[in-house]
Amino acid sequence: MTPPTPLVQNAPPAPHHDGSPLHVSTQAPALGETVRVRLRVPESFGPLSWVGTRSNPNREPRFDEASVVGAADGWQWWQAAVEVENPVHGYRWLLVGADGRQHWLNQLGLSTVETRDHDDFRLVAHEPAPEWAASSVMYQVFPDRFAKSDVAPFDRLREQGELPGWAIAADWGDPVDPVYPGRSKQLFGGDLDGVREQLDHLASLGVDLLYLTPVFPARSNHRYDATTFDLVDPLLGGDEALVRLVEAAHARGIRVIGDLTSNHSGDAHEWFRAAQADAEAPEREFYFFHPSTGSGSTEGYESWLGVPSLPKFDWSSAELRRRFIEGPDSVVARFLGAPFHLDGWRIDVANMTGRLGSADLNESVRRTIRRTMLEAKPDTLLLGESTNDAASDFQGDAWHGAMTYTPFTRPLWSWLLEPGSPAGGGLGFALQRVPTFTGGDFHAAHARFAAGFPWRTRLATMNALDTHDTPRFATHARPGSLPAALGLAVTLPGIPVVWAGDEFGLTGVDGEASRTPMPWGSESSPEVAPVLETYRQLLRLRREHPVLATGGIRWLAVGDDAVAFVRESAEESVLVFAARSAATLEFEAASLAGADAAAPVYGQARLEASDSRVTLSADGPAFAVWSVGGVRAPRW
Amino acid sequence: MTPPTPLVQNAPPAPHHDGSPLHVSTQAPALGETVRVRLRVPESFGPLSWVGTRSNPNREPRFDEASVVGAADGWQWWQAAVEVENPVHGYRWLLVGADGRQHWLNQLGLSTVETRDHDDFRLVAHEPAPEWAASSVMYQVFPDRFAKSDVAPFDRLREQGELPGWAIAADWGDPVDPVYPGRSKQLFGGDLDGVREQLDHLASLGVDLLYLTPVFPARSNHRYDATTFDLVDPLLGGDEALVRLVEAAHARGIRVIGDLTSNHSGDAHEWFRAAQADAEAPEREFYFFHPSTGSGSTEGYESWLGVPSLPKFDWSSAELRRRFIEGPDSVVARFLGAPFHLDGWRIDVANMTGRLGSADLNESVRRTIRRTMLEAKPDTLLLGESTNDAASDFQGDAWHGAMTYTPFTRPLWSWLLEPGSPAGGGLGFALQRVPTFTGGDFHAAHARFAAGFPWRTRLATMNALDTHDTPRFATHARPGSLPAALGLAVTLPGIPVVWAGDEFGLTGVDGEASRTPMPWGSESSPEVAPVLETYRQLLRLRREHPVLATGGIRWLAVGDDAVAFVRESAEESVLVFAARSAATLEFEAASLAGADAAAPVYGQARLEASDSRVTLSADGPAFAVWSVGGVRAPRW
Repeated sequence: MTPPTPLVQNAPPAPHHDGSPLHVSTQAPALGETVRVRLRVPESFGPLSWVGTRSNPNREPRFDEASVVGAADGWQWWQAAVEVENPVHGYRWLLVGADGRQHWLNQLGLSTVETRDHDDFRLVAHEPAPEWAASSVMYQVFPDRFAKSDVAPFDRLREQGELPGWAIAADWGDPVDPVYPGRSKQLFGGDLDGVREQLDHLASLGVDLLYLTPVFPARSNHRYDATTFDLVDPLLGGDEALVRLVEAAHARGIRVIGDLTSNHSGDAHEWFRAAQADAEAPEREFYFFHPSTGSGSTEGYESWLGVPSLPKFDWSSAELRRRFIEGPDSVVARFLGAPFHLDGWRIDVANMTGRLGSADLNESVRRTIRRTMLEAKPDTLLLGESTNDAASDFQGDAWHGAMTYTPFTRPLWSWLLEPGSPAGGGLGFALQRVPTFTGGDFHAAHARFAAGFPWRTRLATMNALDTHDTPRFATHARPGSLPAALGLAVTLPGIPVVWAGDEFGLTGVDGEASRTPMPWGSESSPEVAPVLETYRQLLRLRREHPVLATGGIRWLAVGDDAVAFVRESAEESVLVFAARSAATLEFEAASLAGADAAAPVYGQARLEASDSRVTLSADGPAFAVWSVGGVRAPRW
Repeated sequence: MTPPTPLVQNAPPAPHHDGSPLHVSTQAPALGETVRVRLRVPESFGPLSWVGTRSNPNREPRFDEASVVGAADGWQWWQAAVEVENPVHGYRWLLVGADGRQHWLNQLGLSTVETRDHDDFRLVAHEPAPEWAASSVMYQVFPDRFAKSDVAPFDRLREQGELPGWAIAADWGDPVDPVYPGRSKQLFGGDLDGVREQLDHLASLGVDLLYLTPVFPARSNHRYDATTFDLVDPLLGGDEALVRLVEAAHARGIRVIGDLTSNHSGDAHEWFRAAQADAEAPEREFYFFHPSTGSGSTEGYESWLGVPSLPKFDWSSAELRRRFIEGPDSVVARFLGAPFHLDGWRIDVANMTGRLGSADLNESVRRTIRRTMLEAKPDTLLLGESTNDAASDFQGDAWHGAMTYTPFTRPLWSWLLEPGSPAGGGLGFALQRVPTFTGGDFHAAHARFAAGFPWRTRLATMNALDTHDTPRFATHARPGSLPAALGLAVTLPGIPVVWAGDEFGLTGVDGEASRTPMPWGSESSPEVAPVLETYRQLLRLRREHPVLATGGIRWLAVGDDAVAFVRESAEESVLVFAARSAATLEFEAASLAGADAAAPVYGQARLEASDSRVTLSADGPAFAVWSVGGVRAPRW
């Protein structure tokens, strides 16, 4: 194989392009619009006889020649005009040296051998994510475990012996029971008014996007087995509590998104019950009652991975679409409008939705969901869960971003966990084993999976250390690695995510154990206070440095124990250094103008800049950020 | 980046899997069938704690553990059972070392970092290509330039002044005029009876598959601008001549496929004329009369790359589908049945078909074509032209193989042409420049593009040195490189292709100049005879060694000037060595059992085998083949 040029220490600067406003004139082009794209070539790269882009409209290559539009700080800026001929318009750069040598540049880097289409840069003419998406700081709440208000129905119903029959009541301080039936039935009684009462906590962290896992009535604590989509679970306070929560959140500038299961419902869902009870019921066609063989096969009907309580939807049903995802009366639309005013949806098991055997209705379902949202409330966010290679579904036609673990979470764990740590379930590690990565592996895995996404998708994809489905990062993290881990979530392209409780230093060995009730009141304890402070300081970077939301990214140096990159815009650039242990990284001074005048923003690592070299070093685990001047680029 | 392990000289043997019968129990599985897949691991690879496959049914990973089913010749054979849950079922191997290290194996090779889905191995449950496809030796004929029979209508019409108005008559010995209007209007008058009369020539080469470029009436010598699809061009002898040709070919065991333009017709096509004449005509909807902007935009209607004589089809028209591609009365079906009995189709510009702006009907069109063929004559071949990265359209739902230049033709030229040679038009080289490759680059480019295809697609994809659309390989080839070039076409997976005239040593600087009338009568000349003999000997290898059609492939060593690989089956393995100049390659003896007893089959290179090393060497350009014993594998 001829790999993309590997990143090493002391490497000279390389030609660079990404989807950011420094390099692409129009972030949300229309179909047919001509977009100017720019390539930066370092002076040291040598003379070039031709530079331009190779597009592939309607799958037939088209080359657009670039010309030099300026030079500054050792970079030549080349510009080409690219007409967006398809809604997802791929392009890559070709640089031909004076010696005739061809260099292709795509999202993976440079290659002297022709590259395939799937790692191309992309211009996307579909409707973009809302402007606020990329700059969001997300906080994820699992309602049963977050906070219990004084008006929480749980205690009253418990006293009256009126909790649902499936529930195993627990006190807030009880340990989480990770074994069935407790695993899904143990109920702590958090409610949406409890969430509302803790919004100041979210605000103090700098959070402005709240993601609630499902709030529909169900027969489990996780509520991914909805019994109806018509109302909010009375155990959570019902519709009114959600209305109150969203109102209060909006008053603080915090948006709220919900969670929908488009792959399945619960087996106690009113639609499934109707379908089971009567083969002539209109809901019968919502499910697969003629089981196909396969891992998702259950006696009598198809279900999620063979779990009988989660019957799988058959999206060939027009009536299912109408009720659930299509049009103003659908579930998708209804909760975006009054009185709920949700700001979007996270879609559960988006990867499997509509897929079974020879049927694949995924694209149609996701596009329908997005169209309905655009009609109901355009300024809303749509995230899809797709925890492995998400690229093929996430080209911009519907999902704005992914809840995925391949570009960030798994590589991060592999680099920053104690070697040999158990993976626990939920993160999708093969065989539930965490491989041990070098910084080079971390970068390679990140780059490989990020390269499948259009730039805009990267910006709206969740950078989570962990979620409600996974063990908590802190459980087996290398000592002192939290700033690097959270710092990378904050500084790499994507939406940084706080899974409720991480900021309290909680641990949990799997996706069940990580659903610990929040230890409210411990904020000032010596164990919790410094973790909280780390969260506040790092998340604040997102507010104070908009370049972290939408700026470009260039990797500068990668070593076994440390990585460094810069996020770039015309206004400001931010240099980032993350180390898991004592480490030194070096790169050529030409790679980063202004490094000699870098202003420390966060962390304790050392930056030394000579005329020729920049050295970053730390004596132990570290995360550090410096502000350097904005990139001097020609005006558009 | 962490690339797949690069191949170097003296590398130890590596774990191996491919889609061949040695490694996959069922070449044409049904949906839902369980297929056994096997991985070979060399003893030197070290102890393993877990081996198995990672599938991704309905886009959710599933792991199937493998167990050892045997060992022989230094290889351990691991076997897993994989249920084919989707029509294209991807899988890759995971090997976990005793040290916990994870090794992923996909079609690109080994990676210690998780890999993306698009390079997975694949099991395909769509209808496969006919059994004869992979073992075919193809010969491509451009009817106007191949042979003129005594009954060719051309001379008579020319005498009578009744040639079509567009034609510029030429004598068989005239030079090809590469400049418009001669470029498409110069007519030499070859006919289908001429082709029939030369079938002995094809048979003498070992050819058993004849590919005819279009035979429909048109207004050019290439006939890609059909005026009707209802009949064979009278200039070629009409329907009867095609019937005679196919009958005679079949009598010699030679199959015949035709050429259809699914992207466009000619602007003199009866459908387009009707559509232009009357906006109410049923044919109006066959074309795009409201031009969209873009590179394919023409005043008044959409056309192929803006060429007005080639108006583009709008495949949203059901009537167009009915007439052209769908059902027993369609053009697609009609020529497969009596009296024509064609054996399949090559589809022109398959990559652009049905694609324009936000519309993409490509999958629907190609599947419809294939369905019609299956209904009309199941044992037929469907090839699609897609000269760049064809992978996404060629997963097995319709096209059996690709007429493409990325996995073979362009890498081959880049390795075997004189450095700095002009590319000419037609091969799709960026900027029409041929980059200069090492053997490593050749292998990397081949592997990168081949990895996008299911195994079965690779076997039915055209390995062409050149075609009617490209310059001829011989024009600027390194002296002495023809055996290596043709030898690779014969020995790499895929259908070897002879573009008529190559076997006479013809040259041509671009796709027009390469359409030279065949120099019949020169077969015994001192220039032609040795070339013909090279073709006969190399193409014969395909007949005599079935492993070249369907055997697996393992690369053994790659150097700047030479490459070596082995095609493998239980019955026989064939070792292949190709060098562009004096070169020596070495690999560990453990990589290839039986190398010490290899029997020379073709060529003059040296093979020296010790207990530890195998050395292949040549003093100049060379192509050599040895037969070694079949692979000793456990019985299925």
